[in-house]
Amino acid sequence: MTLAQALFAPRAVALIGASGDPAKNGARPLRFLKKHGYAGRIVPINASRSEVLGERAFTSLAEAPGAIDHAFIMTPGDSVERAIEECGARGVPVATIFSDGFADAGPEGAARQARLIARARELGVRVLGPNSMGLVDVPGRVALTVNAVLEMDALPAGTTSFVSQSGTMLGTVLSRGAARGLGFAKLVSVGNESDIGTGELVELLAGDPGTKVILLFLETIRDGAKLAAAARKAHAAGKPVVAYKLGRSQLGAALARSHTGALAGEDAALDAFFRDCGIVRVDMLETLLEIAPLVGGRRPPDLKRAGRVAVVTTTGGGAASVVDRLGTLGVETVAPDEESPIIDLTMTATAEQYTAALDGLFASGGCDAVLAVVGSSAQFHPQLAVEPILRSKRNDKPLAVFLTPQAERSLGLLAAQGIPAFRTPEACADALAAYCAWRTPRGRPSGTADWPSGLPRRGRLDEAQALELVAAQGIPVVEHAIARPPRLEHAISYPVAAKALSSGILHKTEAGAVCLGIADRAAFDREVGVMLKRLPVAREVLVQKMESGLAEAIIGYRDDPVVGPIALVGAGGTLAEIYRDYALRLAPVSEEEAAVMIGEVKGLATVRGYRGLPRGDLRALAQAVAALSRLALIAGRPVAEAEINPLIVKREGAVAVDGLVVMKEQDSSPPH
Amino acid sequence: MTLAQALFAPRAVALIGASGDPAKNGARPLRFLKKHGYAGRIVPINASRSEVLGERAFTSLAEAPGAIDHAFIMTPGDSVERAIEECGARGVPVATIFSDGFADAGPEGAARQARLIARARELGVRVLGPNSMGLVDVPGRVALTVNAVLEMDALPAGTTSFVSQSGTMLGTVLSRGAARGLGFAKLVSVGNESDIGTGELVELLAGDPGTKVILLFLETIRDGAKLAAAARKAHAAGKPVVAYKLGRSQLGAALARSHTGALAGEDAALDAFFRDCGIVRVDMLETLLEIAPLVGGRRPPDLKRAGRVAVVTTTGGGAASVVDRLGTLGVETVAPDEESPIIDLTMTATAEQYTAALDGLFASGGCDAVLAVVGSSAQFHPQLAVEPILRSKRNDKPLAVFLTPQAERSLGLLAAQGIPAFRTPEACADALAAYCAWRTPRGRPSGTADWPSGLPRRGRLDEAQALELVAAQGIPVVEHAIARPPRLEHAISYPVAAKALSSGILHKTEAGAVCLGIADRAAFDREVGVMLKRLPVAREVLVQKMESGLAEAIIGYRDDPVVGPIALVGAGGTLAEIYRDYALRLAPVSEEEAAVMIGEVKGLATVRGYRGLPRGDLRALAQAVAALSRLALIAGRPVAEAEINPLIVKREGAVAVDGLVVMKEQDSSPPH
Repeated sequence: MTLAQALFAPRAVALIGASGDPAKNGARPLRFLKKHGYAGRIVPINASRSEVLGERAFTSLAEAPGAIDHAFIMTPGDSVERAIEECGARGVPVATIFSDGFADAGPEGAARQARLIARARELGVRVLGPNSMGLVDVPGRVALTVNAVLEMDALPAGTTSFVSQSGTMLGTVLSRGAARGLGFAKLVSVGNESDIGTGELVELLAGDPGTKVILLFLETIRDGAKLAAAARKAHAAGKPVVAYKLGRSQLGAALARSHTGALAGEDAALDAFFRDCGIVRVDMLETLLEIAPLVGGRRPPDLKRAGRVAVVTTTGGGAASVVDRLGTLGVETVAPDEESPIIDLTMTATAEQYTAALDGLFASGGCDAVLAVVGSSAQFHPQLAVEPILRSKRNDKPLAVFLTPQAERSLGLLAAQGIPAFRTPEACADALAAYCAWRTPRGRPSGTADWPSGLPRRGRLDEAQALELVAAQGIPVVEHAIARPPRLEHAISYPVAAKALSSGILHKTEAGAVCLGIADRAAFDREVGVMLKRLPVAREVLVQKMESGLAEAIIGYRDDPVVGPIALVGAGGTLAEIYRDYALRLAPVSEEEAAVMIGEVKGLATVRGYRGLPRGDLRALAQAVAALSRLALIAGRPVAEAEINPLIVKREGAVAVDGLVVMKEQDSSPPH
Repeated sequence: MTLAQALFAPRAVALIGASGDPAKNGARPLRFLKKHGYAGRIVPINASRSEVLGERAFTSLAEAPGAIDHAFIMTPGDSVERAIEECGARGVPVATIFSDGFADAGPEGAARQARLIARARELGVRVLGPNSMGLVDVPGRVALTVNAVLEMDALPAGTTSFVSQSGTMLGTVLSRGAARGLGFAKLVSVGNESDIGTGELVELLAGDPGTKVILLFLETIRDGAKLAAAARKAHAAGKPVVAYKLGRSQLGAALARSHTGALAGEDAALDAFFRDCGIVRVDMLETLLEIAPLVGGRRPPDLKRAGRVAVVTTTGGGAASVVDRLGTLGVETVAPDEESPIIDLTMTATAEQYTAALDGLFASGGCDAVLAVVGSSAQFHPQLAVEPILRSKRNDKPLAVFLTPQAERSLGLLAAQGIPAFRTPEACADALAAYCAWRTPRGRPSGTADWPSGLPRRGRLDEAQALELVAAQGIPVVEHAIARPPRLEHAISYPVAAKALSSGILHKTEAGAVCLGIADRAAFDREVGVMLKRLPVAREVLVQKMESGLAEAIIGYRDDPVVGPIALVGAGGTLAEIYRDYALRLAPVSEEEAAVMIGEVKGLATVRGYRGLPRGDLRALAQAVAALSRLALIAGRPVAEAEINPLIVKREGAVAVDGLVVMKEQDSSPPH
């Protein structure tokens, strides 16, 4: 018996803590399993009853006869540990734990969960949860869940599967789908993901013949590497993965600090992660439900320019509400007719003309997707309203339909034909934009990179060491020297910059540890003297030639705890931070990918030929971004973060003038 | 008989071009009037029939007996002109024209429309349309429209009225509202607005006892001044006005040029217009429908800080989907409990606890609005799900409810109690954010401003003249002088900037008409000589003292053709353009309002105490913004656009170093 079979197709299910009171949450799994036609054996375990809702009950799992493939644990408190012991003793391969009070309940609960899972591993019991609302296999008639929406009479069957970190969302998508004719295969509430997590489930679903599209509702990512690998498997199997991820607005808080890690923010790093793993990310909750037929059976379009959508409509205002939104999302509206970007047949066209217009767009090479908008007729003549769409000569080109009135029947007719149909103009535009942004999982440069022999692999690096690491990656570094007391001699020609050298100063400018544009030796002695007096922690001075160029950029590397190594390029100075103007990818990146990233940074427009300004050497910048990102290839990945801010972009070449490196392993000695 | 009576409560309606074929569009008004119980007389006018769908018909309006209050014209082509003549002859006070082919059909149609309306004015006939789908008064049982959604059996009556530039949207809001228990009073499709426009309708509805909230679906604004005045009347009458406006994405195209007008863009100017007129602007189509009970009966909160919403939920994921969105919209989530910003009662709380939690938030002073989120129970126990909300001790504080599953019955139960309920987390957040941003119509400084006596009131101003105008408003201007050939003498001390003086050069930097940082007279002669050789159009040179400060800002004024005078402040250099980083208001603005605008410009964070950087004189900047905005008070408003870029902000004071002024009336002579 495979894990997938035990999870989704158990021959017998034990309901540990099943309640005999049908109004109680603990009675729901039994009621729902029976209601929706579960064909296997149901074995209620109840300490005080021999019968539960018409089923023979047992006081403990030990007493229950026959093989049990899946246990659903609802008992409170410490009894969960006892239930897992019993599962181990009876050879139950998988247990879903609904009970809470584990990692969902603070550090003590987390410790309890860790002990529970360690014991379950010893016993050979795989665990879904704790704090899981259970799972549903709609075609398989397994409704093993406490979600109240399962009260519904008929569950909508389909080929879309759903993995959710919110148990409520199982009911949300099932009920909203049922009203629209959108069906599901498997739905899983992962709870705390103590053992079986999102990544493993995506991998299982990638191999599931009943699943064609995989949807994810995510509040966090607990194992990025596993999810990334599973997403690649799903892609290889031709199964799109779509994610709705909460936490977008936490970016603001994360931006409070300056270096790459905080700058990138959790959400922007996740965006890069999803993109580079080939996961489609949607912005709106209902899009997650509605997008499935748009991506199902399709491959990423891998567009190298803005997406182009062509539109046919029977309502100008209705079409404009989608087109306007598409514009804000960077998707263009195109049409064979130059005068208007929309084929507007309001109040005039016959069904044949509507179909002919659609056929023309399907046959046209000028668009990536087709949007059909239907006005008021959809409510009272659903068949008439959608017939011209159903009759069109559809091909591989994606079609999306937006219906302006309340039109559940039209939505259902379209869903029955596998045509993506949307309730709101915003979700429609969101889905089309997400489709256009969808990319094949990106291959990353391989190989290894060397750690400079003279540098420590742990502890803190001062700026001179940081520049040495940067230079070792092949990035041009400003001419510099270390001036040591008492005489602070150096051979750099004036004007110079001087920086107090100490790994204990993170924000040098704010600490007053930088003097720029020192014109001569006298000024050097004066200014550096004042600086060192103020900063006794620094004993040496880094002296650099003053550099100038056309623009400043920030480039960065970070080994993110969630998604792994990421590369960053942004506008320099304070722009990247104030305007959140940067681009991210999983690291390492090739020079070509770095060039695409640079194109996404608005502030670098000034060196891309903006308003006739001179162009900067963007190739040198791309080489630097790619070079820094290769820190991901150093054995053991000792670097937590590296940042060059600024890298000065010139007409020819680019040069790093400020480096910051934070190692993963800090030593505990005070900063020198 | 008032216009409102003739429009919405006609005692007799003539249907000009009424079709006898019930399947035709031209039969709909008669069918819909009868179906929905119109109590007045219906008079079909049909050239070839004496009976139309059971009603006595007449071949022309002249033959029809009795007084006619409202004519609905559906005949094609030139017959519209004839119909208007007949309306005039019969003394029909208002005609709604469904027929198209007027301003909707290019310049020729626009000319035809102008002639038609001129004639209608002579005849004393007011016109709705052309290209109007008609109107509906739900409580009054007047369904005078061709919109197919009127096939529905029962129209939902309420106190929300709707004015739409898209006729389809009448059906969209009626049908979506009906499915949810959201009712309407009057709905009007304005078509081309040749005579009766959005502004006049808002004014009528402000005086309509049956209307409590006014919703607008806008594709454009044809008469900003009238709409602004009407919005103020609606505010005075305690009736919120809410707008959904298309065209947000056109901003991109409008940004192609540099000066204030293009920079501001149509949409950003409209945002300022809505805000300053006290109109609530929503971002999503369904919000327009759902927000009515949230604003109905309420006054603008006029918050001077970010909005604060408190949350009670039975689903963590469902609440997070709203809260996350609120965060991206700049609205904070607050709670009495410091540990979590959300009161999460998932799977645990009783109805009493839910009600008690809500009561606590209504009584709390710490939030501006309350959000109640309901999970899966809403679908099968609608009464149970919403009962704890209905029982709560609601007060003036706005309450919004989001239901995660498909839950039309719960939505209806809430609507029946006037409680705002939302289908999607995004519309819920959109509505709460729009409520928090809602402001009382802003009073603007009054008085007059003088035009400097030496300056022309038409034609082009060169930069020296522009600086003179700026200085006349009380804005400090850089020390400058005009150097004239052949010797180009001046008394400004070095280093200086030199600019080729010509009103024919709009983009001086791009034209090579600026030399900065000229160190001495020798350099001046050399650089200016080269410049003048390159630019023979310029014969004089503007010489300025080189200024430096802490930051550069752009300040601007524009007399927008749609919304009237607007004031702008943004980050200087290229930032305002590249990052769209600017704030707008209707002009003139007070110094206090200018200070609020400055606070909205992200790039000016660098002079607001960001990272310990020195603070700039923001009061001087605000004074300059207010001063330039007073160009709106000059008699005749001769200035089309004025821009100072940059205004240099110092530790103390601010100084204009570059001025551009474009007059409304250009003379036709070539630039000197």
